[in-house]
Amino acid sequence: MGQRVLVTGASGCIGRALVPLLQGQGWDVHTSSPSAAEGRPGLPHHAADLLVPGEARRVVRAVKPDALMHLAWFMTPGRWAVATENVEWVRASLELVQEFAAAGGVRVVVSGSCLEYDWDFGYCSEARTPCQPHTLYGVAKNALRLVLEGLAPQAGFRLAWGRVFLVYGPHEHPDRLVPAVIRSLLRGEPARTSHGRQVRDYLYVDDIARAFAALLANDVDGPINIGSGQPLALRTIVERIGDLLGRSDLLQIGAIPAAPTDKPLVVGDVTRITSEMGWAPEVSLDEGLRRTVEFWREELARDGAPTA
Amino acid sequence: MGQRVLVTGASGCIGRALVPLLQGQGWDVHTSSPSAAEGRPGLPHHAADLLVPGEARRVVRAVKPDALMHLAWFMTPGRWAVATENVEWVRASLELVQEFAAAGGVRVVVSGSCLEYDWDFGYCSEARTPCQPHTLYGVAKNALRLVLEGLAPQAGFRLAWGRVFLVYGPHEHPDRLVPAVIRSLLRGEPARTSHGRQVRDYLYVDDIARAFAALLANDVDGPINIGSGQPLALRTIVERIGDLLGRSDLLQIGAIPAAPTDKPLVVGDVTRITSEMGWAPEVSLDEGLRRTVEFWREELARDGAPTA
Repeated sequence: MGQRVLVTGASGCIGRALVPLLQGQGWDVHTSSPSAAEGRPGLPHHAADLLVPGEARRVVRAVKPDALMHLAWFMTPGRWAVATENVEWVRASLELVQEFAAAGGVRVVVSGSCLEYDWDFGYCSEARTPCQPHTLYGVAKNALRLVLEGLAPQAGFRLAWGRVFLVYGPHEHPDRLVPAVIRSLLRGEPARTSHGRQVRDYLYVDDIARAFAALLANDVDGPINIGSGQPLALRTIVERIGDLLGRSDLLQIGAIPAAPTDKPLVVGDVTRITSEMGWAPEVSLDEGLRRTVEFWREELARDGAPTA
Repeated sequence: MGQRVLVTGASGCIGRALVPLLQGQGWDVHTSSPSAAEGRPGLPHHAADLLVPGEARRVVRAVKPDALMHLAWFMTPGRWAVATENVEWVRASLELVQEFAAAGGVRVVVSGSCLEYDWDFGYCSEARTPCQPHTLYGVAKNALRLVLEGLAPQAGFRLAWGRVFLVYGPHEHPDRLVPAVIRSLLRGEPARTSHGRQVRDYLYVDDIARAFAALLANDVDGPINIGSGQPLALRTIVERIGDLLGRSDLLQIGAIPAAPTDKPLVVGDVTRITSEMGWAPEVSLDEGLRRTVEFWREELARDGAPTA
């Protein structure tokens, strides 16, 4: 049995893709989430609400992890950007990492976000782009990172901070752009979107999971962008979904207004992760979308809905 | 009875000077600290260790404050800069402010620090100087401020963040520069210091307390420097103490090495507090030192030590 890692958020979109990779690399994977039902067959799971003080200590003492992969956060669509739960997660994350370090843990990997950057700069570099977040979510992630970076040398752990750009793939929340368009088209309903000229950095969830697995296995420190590095207009991804499903007729691009705060371009500079870690995306947009469509076709079939 | 304010850290150097000012302004002052013995005669005091989760809620629900003056932090000399207790205080402070806001409180004033700034810039402006702290203490204060600034509009309170430069006056910890020199000279012992060419921004504690009282009474938002704005070489302050006590013969300036990380100059730009709030220092360096000397003369006499 290899070294032991405690994974929070293992039942989320990225966590689901990541856990099998870690097992494949020989990690002794333990998971934790508020629900006992979210455990995986054959994996030790620790039901705990980390927002409750003292629960982190209980889990850490039970697991005695060498490494911590902290993906859990408050992500409810429509609320995550401004929710005061972001502050709860700063407190809970600090408690978790302090308990982890106090128990002798040495490697910490946390999921950060492109929302830590000042999006007015557009092209986001770890070394150059200012971290002036526009949302409480981004503020909270950024502040957590600052404290953990300051704490690491005092508490004796090494920290890698994976800044995720935009994820897509199976298990993404159904209300987000890619699943929403796919589900509408599968049901034969119109998909209404904004103008779609916003340029973003989308990466298939398996590639993001591979990046996190690499961060855990390496000694790299500090923030490191996890993105495709490829600018992609939202309308392009929507049109590809239309093509894949043969239902471009249902696309109503421009039917709803874009948020006034929407920024024209947000793309990650991925020089660091590609040059320092030899990581590169493996799943093309078309392949990723195909897999995502298959996932939703099965989900909808399971729900008994008629699909195209 | 006026509006009610909960003051943490009321038994500290600044808190002791501040509480009477707040009372004089008509505030209904409640204090909180871990020790029941630290209460003041005639003031409601709530013994609570805010580092223990749940204690903030208990105190806030008992007090029902309109305003919060949060001065408490971990300040043990020799350890405060790097202590992991700084992270505990981030967690505790977030919990305190969230509980305060949840109970309907609307005005929050927190003591920040010049250590939030990148000291390589020397002259520190709220608007222009980057916050790139060199210590875990500064990192923690800065991160707490970032989260509270992001939280304020969501949770419905207004935040003023008083960035204290260097304080001196009665009740400062005896191991810090000004008390250490005064105590040595009062005892007729040599006072050994570094070269003393480091330029800093010292302000007498009563002037700092007046600034905090003004922050509480006003609606000003965000970080605001609390300093003299006057550059002062450490050796000047040491020499003044020697003059005041007529014991310059005991000064051994340059006898110990300066810390290699010491920066040449740290001075606050106090344009904001002077122009927006009409505040100005009232206690001259000579007067402040005289009062501080008197305080220590009485302290040492009480301890039975012979003094010059």
